[in-house]
Amino acid sequence: MNYRAEIDVMPLKALLDPQGKAVAKSMKNLGVNEITDIRIGKHITLYLKADSEKSAKEKVETACKKLLANPIMEYYEYQIFSE
Amino acid sequence: MNYRAEIDVMPLKALLDPQGKAVAKSMKNLGVNEITDIRIGKHITLYLKADSEKSAKEKVETACKKLLANPIMEYYEYQIFSE
Repeated sequence: MNYRAEIDVMPLKALLDPQGKAVAKSMKNLGVNEITDIRIGKHITLYLKADSEKSAKEKVETACKKLLANPIMEYYEYQIFSE
Repeated sequence: MNYRAEIDVMPLKALLDPQGKAVAKSMKNLGVNEITDIRIGKHITLYLKADSEKSAKEKVETACKKLLANPIMEYYEYQIFSE
């Protein structure tokens, strides 16, 4: 079975996100007002083959933990879709 | 009203994504097999105030077009939630 995982890796909420702060400031100069906050992270679309949704989930977990997210600074969320 | 926009900015499908290709290769070394493809982009969470969902949508469109996405290399998708 083919699966697609949509993964978001975001800076932990307790941490400052300097990239987001910089973009929030630029928004004002562009005339986009009333932006309260911006947080910027990564979005990863992973296409994979697996026997079952459970097995696909395990692979995505391993990928996130070992490679895609740095748990000291980031958290991750994902959704898996069968294709 | 407070709104939250969840925006994905991804490399255009017609373009090669070297970052994704590099990560896909690393996956094999980590023992995560049967990864067909990976594409890596940005995920942006934008918190904003607006009078209506329509007005929030206009702001998010402006932000994406003027600052967050480079239309030559990237496309964007977003969802807006009222908070």
